[in-house]
Amino acid sequence: MTAADLEQRLQAAVAQAWDGQKDGAHGMGHLRRVWANCQRIARADAPQADGLVLMAAAYLHDLVNLPKDHPDRAHASALSAQAAGPILADLGLSPARQATACHAIAAHSFSAGIPPQTIEARILQDANRLEALGAIGLARMFYIAGAMGSALFDDADPLARHRPLDDRRLALDHLEVKLFGLVDTMHTAEGRRIAGERSDWMASFRTRLLSEIG
Amino acid sequence: MTAADLEQRLQAAVAQAWDGQKDGAHGMGHLRRVWANCQRIARADAPQADGLVLMAAAYLHDLVNLPKDHPDRAHASALSAQAAGPILADLGLSPARQATACHAIAAHSFSAGIPPQTIEARILQDANRLEALGAIGLARMFYIAGAMGSALFDDADPLARHRPLDDRRLALDHLEVKLFGLVDTMHTAEGRRIAGERSDWMASFRTRLLSEIG
Repeated sequence: MTAADLEQRLQAAVAQAWDGQKDGAHGMGHLRRVWANCQRIARADAPQADGLVLMAAAYLHDLVNLPKDHPDRAHASALSAQAAGPILADLGLSPARQATACHAIAAHSFSAGIPPQTIEARILQDANRLEALGAIGLARMFYIAGAMGSALFDDADPLARHRPLDDRRLALDHLEVKLFGLVDTMHTAEGRRIAGERSDWMASFRTRLLSEIG
Repeated sequence: MTAADLEQRLQAAVAQAWDGQKDGAHGMGHLRRVWANCQRIARADAPQADGLVLMAAAYLHDLVNLPKDHPDRAHASALSAQAAGPILADLGLSPARQATACHAIAAHSFSAGIPPQTIEARILQDANRLEALGAIGLARMFYIAGAMGSALFDDADPLARHRPLDDRRLALDHLEVKLFGLVDTMHTAEGRRIAGERSDWMASFRTRLLSEIG
């Protein structure tokens, strides 16, 4: 099977698993971009990483999508890894590669709290976190806030100088609560470099927003 | 009644009218910012504008909020003007001022298609349109897309080079369909200047987003 064949089969498997689901911030475009980020990081920092495992893990990492406010949210990546098992076997990946892909999927998410043990798992985590940063991260942050019905920001105190941060209630708080900290969680040099540049841009967006809203 | 008293009573009237409604993109912060934009434009271009009328119209312009996809959406500003009538009378505004404020409210919205006949109506229209531009406009655009469940953009053709634009389905299309055209609809020099600067920033955001998503 060529890499292009595998990519097509992975996309078909995800489309089938997602049938009927609709999530504008976690669609096929997100999976394609995470896979592109994986390739970019691997090229720069880890040419030894297993490309087939990375591709499979990138496409299957959000197989089970749960909303940010779902009680099982912290287990979504473990559930995705579980659901990926039969697909990986069906694609004919060796048992070792299946295990490596499953670990990368289970460990990819922030809320899972599973330390990535392999280079593929580290690359996938970095590649996925890049999607939360920069212009794409900003678009997704406000999109998710709209879908959850939270507010854009606290009009009286947007920077939370005199109140606790609360990113369930206020979209802009998510920058301090989570996104600005992501750069320090990156495992690869290329991931960290891109994350730093995207974080800086988000900070400049916030400065601009604050000046517009007075 | 001082201006501060009037502002407080307007906010109380809106809070009462909005009771139970929840719309993260059209809250009290939006009203305060539109009023601030009105003051900024009036200071620069039209010191002769009636400040009390402007303040009342700014706070009451979204009294009736309808979602973007509501069939009566085009009438929301006329309904707001109607609902504002008793409030304006109750505040003790003269009949002439009530009429001027009601016209400004009815004419404020893009979809109403009512030409603004007074300087106050032109200022309010400009002030409200500024909220759709720049960093605040971008945040609101993606927020509303999330609330409506549309997609962020077309992954395969984000700039709509080979398909018709469709901003109900795709948030990013809203830039071409509506937002980039707003600068040419501005009536005041100060409004146009700010709109131009905010439009340019939105274009730079789009360039950045496109480079991130490849």
